[in-house]
Amino acid sequence: MCDDASEKIVNIATPVMNKNDRFAAENRKLLGEKGIYTLNLISSPGAGKTTVLESMARFFGQRMAVIEGDVQTRRDAERIEKAGCQAWQIETGGACHLDAHAVKHALDHMDLSSEELELLAIENVGNLICPSGYDLGEDMRIGLLSVPEGDDKILKYPSLFSTINVLLINKMDLIPHLDFDVDITIKECRSLSPDVEVFTVSARTGEGMEEFCEFVESSFS
Amino acid sequence: MCDDASEKIVNIATPVMNKNDRFAAENRKLLGEKGIYTLNLISSPGAGKTTVLESMARFFGQRMAVIEGDVQTRRDAERIEKAGCQAWQIETGGACHLDAHAVKHALDHMDLSSEELELLAIENVGNLICPSGYDLGEDMRIGLLSVPEGDDKILKYPSLFSTINVLLINKMDLIPHLDFDVDITIKECRSLSPDVEVFTVSARTGEGMEEFCEFVESSFS
Repeated sequence: MCDDASEKIVNIATPVMNKNDRFAAENRKLLGEKGIYTLNLISSPGAGKTTVLESMARFFGQRMAVIEGDVQTRRDAERIEKAGCQAWQIETGGACHLDAHAVKHALDHMDLSSEELELLAIENVGNLICPSGYDLGEDMRIGLLSVPEGDDKILKYPSLFSTINVLLINKMDLIPHLDFDVDITIKECRSLSPDVEVFTVSARTGEGMEEFCEFVESSFS
Repeated sequence: MCDDASEKIVNIATPVMNKNDRFAAENRKLLGEKGIYTLNLISSPGAGKTTVLESMARFFGQRMAVIEGDVQTRRDAERIEKAGCQAWQIETGGACHLDAHAVKHALDHMDLSSEELELLAIENVGNLICPSGYDLGEDMRIGLLSVPEGDDKILKYPSLFSTINVLLINKMDLIPHLDFDVDITIKECRSLSPDVEVFTVSARTGEGMEEFCEFVESSFS
């Protein structure tokens, strides 16, 4: 459940955000000390975050662990475990985003002791708006946009697309069946985030995923 | 910007919701007096709400007016106006849902005096979570789910799919290219909303849209 943006609420949001930032700093410190590089994946519901992570799990194997954020169900964590990675599910029970405190709890329960482990991917709740205001302690923020959602989404959701390091355009296998202008999408994203890295992929067919995984790997190796 | 679900916030959410319910009751009374039947369309970003409304605008013409909710940009209202309907854009400026007060403001600005007008469609902000808790004063709540989002979304987002009167499964033209089980989707939706009406459509090709529009028409005629 999301609260209203009335004046009453906004006054209280500031200390809440500061509290979140404190937990995010703690997460960043802990993960840094353990030499674990952290990604925060944000997208609409159904843009393909879990399928991207399944593909990454096959590339990174036991070098990667995953935190799955969902309003309800453990389905996504089960998919990731099957693909070969340690996965921890956070069921938010109605909340529309992950916050750094929820991630801290997950970290407390996960086994981060393996020397092999060098990458943590956090799949946020499917939502283009609310997650963008919450630093989780990540090193890289990835915005996923899938081709069927349409090429008008960048400027509609600037609070997300102005804060990402990487834009992943997914479901490229559906391009022949849809009107989606990749060039306009990239141009509009660069107008908000000039240094954004862009990858066009299909997590379902595997197209472009190796190049993306190698880029992630080069960020921490 | 969405606020945290911390205890502090939840205590304040109750009066906020009551305030919303009061505005929703005012909207319902005003629209009822004018003989205008009202729809609230909720979906993920890019599920096709605006394309559905363009198609409905061609069916209903001046009998329908539209309120468009978006975080930013006037693009959707411009599309609806081109399709032949009066449209009013609410830019929420960061808020992740419409509330009844924002809709009341839109109604104050719109021309509701035409005797022809008998249907108001409200396109909510693209978000499967936050809009579900806000009654806008509608007579019918429609949940849109598009085929590329996947058939696992109903149980992941029960706060929406347990409160809808109609499930509209959109982008059926993409079924041959994707793994999407329509029967499971309908079964899971009926487990949450036993009386839900279901329509399978492609707003892009027009498939199923006439049947859906005739159903909406029969609800107020």
